[in-house]
Amino acid sequence: MDSIERLTQLFERFPGIGPRQAQRFVQFLLRSSAATRRELMDAVQSLGGSVHQCAECMRFFSGKEKVCAICTDPGRDASLLAVVASDADLAALEHSHNFRGHYFVLGGTVSLASDTGNNLRMKQLLEAVPARTKAGLMEIILAFPANPEGDATAEQVRKKMVDLRGRPLKITALGRGLSTGSELEYADPDTIKSAIESRR
Amino acid sequence: MDSIERLTQLFERFPGIGPRQAQRFVQFLLRSSAATRRELMDAVQSLGGSVHQCAECMRFFSGKEKVCAICTDPGRDASLLAVVASDADLAALEHSHNFRGHYFVLGGTVSLASDTGNNLRMKQLLEAVPARTKAGLMEIILAFPANPEGDATAEQVRKKMVDLRGRPLKITALGRGLSTGSELEYADPDTIKSAIESRR
Amino acid sequence: MDSIERLTQLFERFPGIGPRQAQRFVQFLLRSSAATRRELMDAVQSLGGSVHQCAECMRFFSGKEKVCAICTDPGRDASLLAVVASDADLAALEHSHNFRGHYFVLGGTVSLASDTGNNLRMKQLLEAVPARTKAGLMEIILAFPANPEGDATAEQVRKKMVDLRGRPLKITALGRGLSTGSELEYADPDTIKSAIESRR
Amino acid sequence: MDSIERLTQLFERFPGIGPRQAQRFVQFLLRSSAATRRELMDAVQSLGGSVHQCAECMRFFSGKEKVCAICTDPGRDASLLAVVASDADLAALEHSHNFRGHYFVLGGTVSLASDTGNNLRMKQLLEAVPARTKAGLMEIILAFPANPEGDATAEQVRKKMVDLRGRPLKITALGRGLSTGSELEYADPDTIKSAIESRR
Repeated sequence: MDSIERLTQLFERFPGIGPRQAQRFVQFLLRSSAATRRELMDAVQSLGGSVHQCAECMRFFSGKEKVCAICTDPGRDASLLAVVASDADLAALEHSHNFRGHYFVLGGTVSLASDTGNNLRMKQLLEAVPARTKAGLMEIILAFPANPEGDATAEQVRKKMVDLRGRPLKITALGRGLSTGSELEYADPDTIKSAIESRR
Repeated sequence: MDSIERLTQLFERFPGIGPRQAQRFVQFLLRSSAATRRELMDAVQSLGGSVHQCAECMRFFSGKEKVCAICTDPGRDASLLAVVASDADLAALEHSHNFRGHYFVLGGTVSLASDTGNNLRMKQLLEAVPARTKAGLMEIILAFPANPEGDATAEQVRKKMVDLRGRPLKITALGRGLSTGSELEYADPDTIKSAIESRR
Repeated sequence: MDSIERLTQLFERFPGIGPRQAQRFVQFLLRSSAATRRELMDAVQSLGGSVHQCAECMRFFSGKEKVCAICTDPGRDASLLAVVASDADLAALEHSHNFRGHYFVLGGTVSLASDTGNNLRMKQLLEAVPARTKAGLMEIILAFPANPEGDATAEQVRKKMVDLRGRPLKITALGRGLSTGSELEYADPDTIKSAIESRR
Repeated sequence: MDSIERLTQLFERFPGIGPRQAQRFVQFLLRSSAATRRELMDAVQSLGGSVHQCAECMRFFSGKEKVCAICTDPGRDASLLAVVASDADLAALEHSHNFRGHYFVLGGTVSLASDTGNNLRMKQLLEAVPARTKAGLMEIILAFPANPEGDATAEQVRKKMVDLRGRPLKITALGRGLSTGSELEYADPDTIKSAIESRR
């Protein structure tokens, strides 16, 4: 197999990329300068070098520190911890510029198809709670997607946290309702139900 | 203009129908039996006959009564009034099986493009409030679409209701947040903001 | 069932229309004037009255004549006959302003799923050929869609016309190749094959 | 800028990739093993090493030879030369398994927006023709996309080849017509025109 085919096959493994687009990526790199290709290789290399998971929130970041810039930022509100499924969800919350608490990346959602998500960092989450509570944590916000997997994950987290009851710790979930741009006419009954219940 | 073209042009005025689909409708009717076409004509005719607007909620219904079955249902909760833009939005709320109060159809939303919605039934809404309050109304729920027009309509209703202040009347709006199926990763910042604020 | 529901169900039978859009049509008619609804009823009625099938090409047209304006137009080229599946396909050819021959509407394509298209006007087509040949017909163009049903229909017409062999009658089919806007990169192999074979 | 952001920005330059998908690529690579990232780097590197343009058809291929496997294949038909815009279009023709001649990659199409495509290999194409004619070339097939840019490119090639007139060299273009799956009803007038003209 020549290097064009080999690279095409590697790009096909990228999320959402089919054979056709993989080919276009290779053509794009062929037409790019050697410097551009070098840049790409360097950036991929440094992912492996400088990038690692934050020891606290478990997100990937670039740097030599053990703990990421969000976790060490003294301006963040230590009373709030948002538990998210992925780095991408963390980024979405961060970009909304409306959450100033801390994060914990669970590493996915419970899978309803196969047997449960043993790769999720449930244990790490539970172990981290006592120290965080001592540091002022008051509320854990379950910020999972509004789908069956997200709901199952939330339920599982709540169950595992039963032992933590008694502590002054509130567990909440992101509000459901009409999302921006929703028309009632096209909204599903569940969303309308949530929107009525969470009216204010 | 022959009757094929005439009917095509009439169907083109239907919401969401272009010339091509209008033609297909005509072809469909041409291939239909005379009985089917007769049924269609009868149904359109009886819209004009038996169908009229409810004197209370202003929605269209079929019958000889002045007031529709929802408005006269003694099982409905007279303390709640949902103000909606359209009959279709009323139907959506009703189908969610989660709202048991009364309705008022405003007849549209404020238009942001042209000058304001003079056709909206603002006056009728305001005039209906005193009697409804006497009948036990406690809360008006503004159930408008989650878009700029819906927001502008809500704001205008709130302004006009300033005079009603002092009465024990709460004005709420449908909750915003993640709608069913939303993934955080793809949610817009406003929706995430609402979802954080309305967490519970 | 009231007249709103009845009309909604009738509109749901229209091609491509689901429950939601059927509801919108009814709402649209409710908001329309009585005159508009009257116009619609009249147009539907006159479909049944003045509209009938042309005795020659079998398309629907409006008028009292037995034969439509295209079939009686002395400016049309009697040496060419395009056999099409539907009135809509006839209209598409006519709108391309590139065909000046005559038409015959077969009434559909052979169905590959169920048993064959007995409703197709194969017999009428075959019976019409001798008179048309006498009137100068030289070429029958099979203008069917470029899909398996269209191909099966073309094959069936060709088979049935075997008996007509010997007469100076050519049977052709619409050319295959790149359609306007096609990019080679995204074209399917069959289309590329046709485009290479029909190069010129 | 850290290596996550740097790599995200590089992926954003890939064709058809927005910020969101670029982020997903980076997340995918972060979750991948070091071995996978190494493989990717190696494949990108070897693009720069073994991959180069064929001296005859100008497509990119992997190998040490000056001329690619298609150009040196004695089984290919030297009487036919397909001029294509891109490597991807060459691949599409090759995958249709219906063309056994030679190729020449022009490197793009004439741009209608900006000033003309000076980067196209017009000069190389013209210079290659005499030797190819001597080797038996009889027909040049302009295999460009069926859009205005493709048409303008074909016209320009034809103009530049005026000097080659007199030689026994035919210049053709891919056939236009209904592409696989086309329904007449939805075909544009130009496509129908081509389909009528190229009937057979």
